[in-house]
Amino acid sequence: MKPVFVTSNENKLREASEILGVDLDRADVDVPEIQSLDFEEVAAAKALAARRALGDPAYQVIVDDSGLSVGAWGGFPGPLTRWLMKSVGNTGLLKMLATEEDRSAQAVCVVAVAAPSGSVRVFRGVVEGEISREPRGEGGFGFDPIFVPEGQTRTYAEMGDEKSMDSHRTRAFRAARKGF
Amino acid sequence: MKPVFVTSNENKLREASEILGVDLDRADVDVPEIQSLDFEEVAAAKALAARRALGDPAYQVIVDDSGLSVGAWGGFPGPLTRWLMKSVGNTGLLKMLATEEDRSAQAVCVVAVAAPSGSVRVFRGVVEGEISREPRGEGGFGFDPIFVPEGQTRTYAEMGDEKSMDSHRTRAFRAARKGF
Repeated sequence: MKPVFVTSNENKLREASEILGVDLDRADVDVPEIQSLDFEEVAAAKALAARRALGDPAYQVIVDDSGLSVGAWGGFPGPLTRWLMKSVGNTGLLKMLATEEDRSAQAVCVVAVAAPSGSVRVFRGVVEGEISREPRGEGGFGFDPIFVPEGQTRTYAEMGDEKSMDSHRTRAFRAARKGF
Repeated sequence: MKPVFVTSNENKLREASEILGVDLDRADVDVPEIQSLDFEEVAAAKALAARRALGDPAYQVIVDDSGLSVGAWGGFPGPLTRWLMKSVGNTGLLKMLATEEDRSAQAVCVVAVAAPSGSVRVFRGVVEGEISREPRGEGGFGFDPIFVPEGQTRTYAEMGDEKSMDSHRTRAFRAARKGF
């Protein structure tokens, strides 16, 4: 039976399928995430919750969790990034960071794979980078307009399709590849 | 059978018991909270998770969830306050708010009560206030050193025992009183 990737996003499904080199089905189940600053903990709990929601199936259940870990904030917001984005957006985040010299950040993605046995493996992808001074670029979503990956001058949003050639999510799925 | 308040804090137990006017037992079960900016949603899910962890008992299960909703940040961090505190603390929060004119904030507590039937009621306590320019006071915990309730010049931390006479938690338990 094909592994199932829990996502509402067809593009993410195609991308994950290509990187893993296996055909994936998609499931659109909405499971709450747990509060934690630990990506692995959040992703593993999400994989198990999705597995339960799908009726403990005989195929592998794949989820991912991603976020921005800001150096000056000790890694915050990490797995809680979507809620900061939802509340204040990228311009709000830039205001909150305005007085900091340290602009370093990591874009992090953790892929969790729940096996039919109920055991879970997690795989981490990290891209080091910096927070830009202002939002730039029309492409992407979330923090893409303010994250400049190491070795680049453009933000994720300005990089367009080029982003996914070596993004935090791409790296996490590459790390997961050996498990398929 | 006595209702059970899920808390690791003996002081909170005594305080809740006094306000509700009923004897409470204490349970120290550690249940993960769900990610959300909605206090009621977080508290209700926590009450149900605690009830499950206690084996679906025949008594009422009480939990509370509290946090700081910052006006300039559209209510963020709200139920996620403990993670911001854990990452950057009060001084970090003040730095993040340094460029904002709007210093308004709400201290919010929501009490959730899960009945033996599995239904859940929620009760909200709110104290309007402001974020101070620097941490002040030795008492209290969490955001107490930077929250100045409306009508006061002192922070929660400076108010000491006086805080609990009319705090957000006190107000939430007063609202819950009619259910006991």
